[in-house]
Amino acid sequence: MREHGGNLDLAQQRFGGRAEDWIDLSTGINRQPYPVGEVSAHAWSALPSRTEIQALHQAAQHAYRTNAAIVAIGGAQAAIQLLPQLAPAGRARVLAPTYNEYAGVLVTSGWDVQEVGVLEALAGADIAVVVNPNNPDGRNFALEDLLALLPRVGRLVVDESFADAVPQLSLAPQADRPGLLILRSFGKFYGLAGLRLGFAIGNAADIGKLAAMSGPWPVSGPAIAIGCRALRDDGWAAATSARLARDCVRLDAMAQAQGWRLIGGTTLFRLYETPDALAAQEKLARGQIWSRVFAKAPTWLRLGLPGSEAEWTRLANILAR
Amino acid sequence: MREHGGNLDLAQQRFGGRAEDWIDLSTGINRQPYPVGEVSAHAWSALPSRTEIQALHQAAQHAYRTNAAIVAIGGAQAAIQLLPQLAPAGRARVLAPTYNEYAGVLVTSGWDVQEVGVLEALAGADIAVVVNPNNPDGRNFALEDLLALLPRVGRLVVDESFADAVPQLSLAPQADRPGLLILRSFGKFYGLAGLRLGFAIGNAADIGKLAAMSGPWPVSGPAIAIGCRALRDDGWAAATSARLARDCVRLDAMAQAQGWRLIGGTTLFRLYETPDALAAQEKLARGQIWSRVFAKAPTWLRLGLPGSEAEWTRLANILAR
Repeated sequence: MREHGGNLDLAQQRFGGRAEDWIDLSTGINRQPYPVGEVSAHAWSALPSRTEIQALHQAAQHAYRTNAAIVAIGGAQAAIQLLPQLAPAGRARVLAPTYNEYAGVLVTSGWDVQEVGVLEALAGADIAVVVNPNNPDGRNFALEDLLALLPRVGRLVVDESFADAVPQLSLAPQADRPGLLILRSFGKFYGLAGLRLGFAIGNAADIGKLAAMSGPWPVSGPAIAIGCRALRDDGWAAATSARLARDCVRLDAMAQAQGWRLIGGTTLFRLYETPDALAAQEKLARGQIWSRVFAKAPTWLRLGLPGSEAEWTRLANILAR
Repeated sequence: MREHGGNLDLAQQRFGGRAEDWIDLSTGINRQPYPVGEVSAHAWSALPSRTEIQALHQAAQHAYRTNAAIVAIGGAQAAIQLLPQLAPAGRARVLAPTYNEYAGVLVTSGWDVQEVGVLEALAGADIAVVVNPNNPDGRNFALEDLLALLPRVGRLVVDESFADAVPQLSLAPQADRPGLLILRSFGKFYGLAGLRLGFAIGNAADIGKLAAMSGPWPVSGPAIAIGCRALRDDGWAAATSARLARDCVRLDAMAQAQGWRLIGGTTLFRLYETPDALAAQEKLARGQIWSRVFAKAPTWLRLGLPGSEAEWTRLANILAR
């Protein structure tokens, strides 16, 4: 089990409290989720039909502004699990530090995995992985630089799990280029990570392989019903992007007042340099706010954005102690 | 895309009507589902924690009467998708006719697949697959015969997707034997196929491999919450088993009155021999009841059990035409 955010059960074991007492800022999941609304009996009971899955694909193509082939999967993580099978095991390079599941899953499947620090160093890999914008440091990569890299790698996987609020950074509209594979997460921006929904977008051959590996019913009926509504709701997405941008400014100001330096981030989380991240995590945890630290970077503290005004107030009060 | 029940979109294309107008008897999904109840905001929004997934595993161990290692997956189908990776491609034998995904998935992954007609003929396979009780014909296999086969195959996969109402047929309590792997479906007996939940039960090594391939969040928050409740509800399960047994007698009598002969079945579906299954399917479809036919067996008609009394009445009226 690799280290992840969202491990609130560990927070409870160490610091007490019931799950509902905690504010979990250890992830990049939007804490003002898309309204789930009523879920029909049909969605719970019936096997998802091809027609329903196609409607979900079309809604996702709308949201991600692409006509490329697409397949719904049980979260971006489900696509990561399948990556090693897209090609015979070879050389993988991952732009690091980043989401640790890429290297982990590829190594387990017999790939030779190298973590590199700059985009250029990905050249020559059979599979190259870039998270854009990157988790946890928010680094951005320009479309032209990624496209220039494309012919120099076997497959370029661009994980756009945090790109919803920055569509200008997305290669999804060009995902049908040979060798390019885009992964999208539904749960983070829409605040519904428990739903387990994500998408892979790419050329027809790769998407066909991923679809075959995922089987006939890769996502749940509720995920289809809610995803279809949410991904067509441009107004909610625009309002949420604007709100998240404002909230980042607010959180950065609070962090700065603590003497924490902004390293970077996306609109769903911020990464700060602190004198001692474990101490900062513990201070927050005593007020039952959970945060993310990194074993390899003892000064880094990653914080998601509070949701309600009550959550902001509690965070401010704890930081003021 | 292989031929499956639950393809109500095809029924609508051919015979019209809205999805909600149809009674879908083309699957073995219980039409009186377990009550979903309220799903918490936490279940929709948060990444499932290890603690929550462990609670689901314990509830499933209770329902399936086993202490063997277990892993929750997105439906029994999700486990089938992973089967080819449990061992290097070799000889697979599938007791047929049965659920067509086994042969399909294994062939796609480079396995040499042979369909055999009797249990004995599975001996010598690297992976042997038995569905018990079998879909679509309801054949049962005795525990002692399956256990006698176990040392004669590399791995014995027993799909118990339709075993909930016949626990005496289940090898789940003995699933920790080397080489044995049991698959269970949640959605069929509990009537919640849209939820995408199933389990693999076996020895620690195989279950560890399947868990690693499934990743850290293989099932949704709602699936965990509802699964934990349903799998502990022994009263509901007992009442449902009794009701399904009565309903089978009722459906068999109606079929017999049509001149259809019972071939076999489970408590969730019945297989009848008809003079012309396509004609029977069309007769039912004109009353917007969908059924399952089989390209390879033109006299076979498979029917799930109606749910409400209104559904029974509609079926009786259509059959009386």
